[in-house]
Amino acid sequence: MASGHESDDPTAEIMEATYRALCEHGYPETSISKIADEFEKSQSLLYYHYEDKEDLLEDFLRYLLDQLEAELDEIDEDDPVQRLSAVLDRLFPRDIDDEGIRFRRAILEIRSQAPYHDVYQEQFKRSDDLILAEIVDAIEDGIDSGAFRAVNSQQTAEFIYSTAYGGIELGVTLEDEDSLERSRVAIDDYIDSHLRMYA
Amino acid sequence: MASGHESDDPTAEIMEATYRALCEHGYPETSISKIADEFEKSQSLLYYHYEDKEDLLEDFLRYLLDQLEAELDEIDEDDPVQRLSAVLDRLFPRDIDDEGIRFRRAILEIRSQAPYHDVYQEQFKRSDDLILAEIVDAIEDGIDSGAFRAVNSQQTAEFIYSTAYGGIELGVTLEDEDSLERSRVAIDDYIDSHLRMYA
Repeated sequence: MASGHESDDPTAEIMEATYRALCEHGYPETSISKIADEFEKSQSLLYYHYEDKEDLLEDFLRYLLDQLEAELDEIDEDDPVQRLSAVLDRLFPRDIDDEGIRFRRAILEIRSQAPYHDVYQEQFKRSDDLILAEIVDAIEDGIDSGAFRAVNSQQTAEFIYSTAYGGIELGVTLEDEDSLERSRVAIDDYIDSHLRMYA
Repeated sequence: MASGHESDDPTAEIMEATYRALCEHGYPETSISKIADEFEKSQSLLYYHYEDKEDLLEDFLRYLLDQLEAELDEIDEDDPVQRLSAVLDRLFPRDIDDEGIRFRRAILEIRSQAPYHDVYQEQFKRSDDLILAEIVDAIEDGIDSGAFRAVNSQQTAEFIYSTAYGGIELGVTLEDEDSLERSRVAIDDYIDSHLRMYA
């Protein structure tokens, strides 16, 4: 999510403010009033639209999902390895920066609360499905073109996605950048050794 | 953690009460008073020992680490595949039951707060290191005995551990038992195809 620039769309501005508050304070400490502190326009707009933090966060997750969908749509790589790598970069970039770590920290906090919030859970399910479908597509393209071995695309996609999610979870919660870097390299190595036809 | 039975050790009883409260209410909703509700002895003992929930949870994480250490010590498998599988079973059992899901849900919630609590973070780091060391040992044993290929044991252990953690994270937060089962099968398949010498 591009922070720092200002938008003329009030919804986008509220979402940017939510993003900044979550990165700064983490999920439990983020309140409507802390989001309001990050919101430069009339704060009453925010209180008018949202009853509580959960209500706002539901919209925030929808907004993130739309952004993710747009970002995945933008991927325009012909080479299957590059395409798969581009999808993974959206989820788990190489050289993840400090803002990226703080954003993922907040996402993991919100996800940990998904069992108690149906809408959170539904949004995470949708974003999982979206990313998995992209990984499956990239793998199947690679199989069709002869670049990848004839693996089970669904199982392999779920395996790669789990590994990426776990690598983020382990590295972000321990604030260990080396661990994050090693995890991403290990996924790339797996794709090279397990998926590529002529490894 | 074996719940249901009563111990004569007051610390163990407090820890069992904490476990039950976390499984039942989740992390944010668990308070000292909710833990006290699960504690059959004098509740003043609990208030005497612990200032707040975080303070108690720090001890709870230490207690879990001791339990994990004891459980890993008990593993007595000569076959490297069986040994590796036994270590993974402690973390990510096959046919994980409802209590197991609720317990892991609570652990993921606490872990998501590790960036804000040094002691939480330290305990998770120690338990990660403990499990990783066991996986590395099992892999190296297998390489020495000729059962496993000569992989990089540290990288392979981290990869397996990330995959297991991510599989738990994805399945538990979406309460999707099929996804949990598939994730564990995928790890077993990876060990078979990537690690075993004669796959």
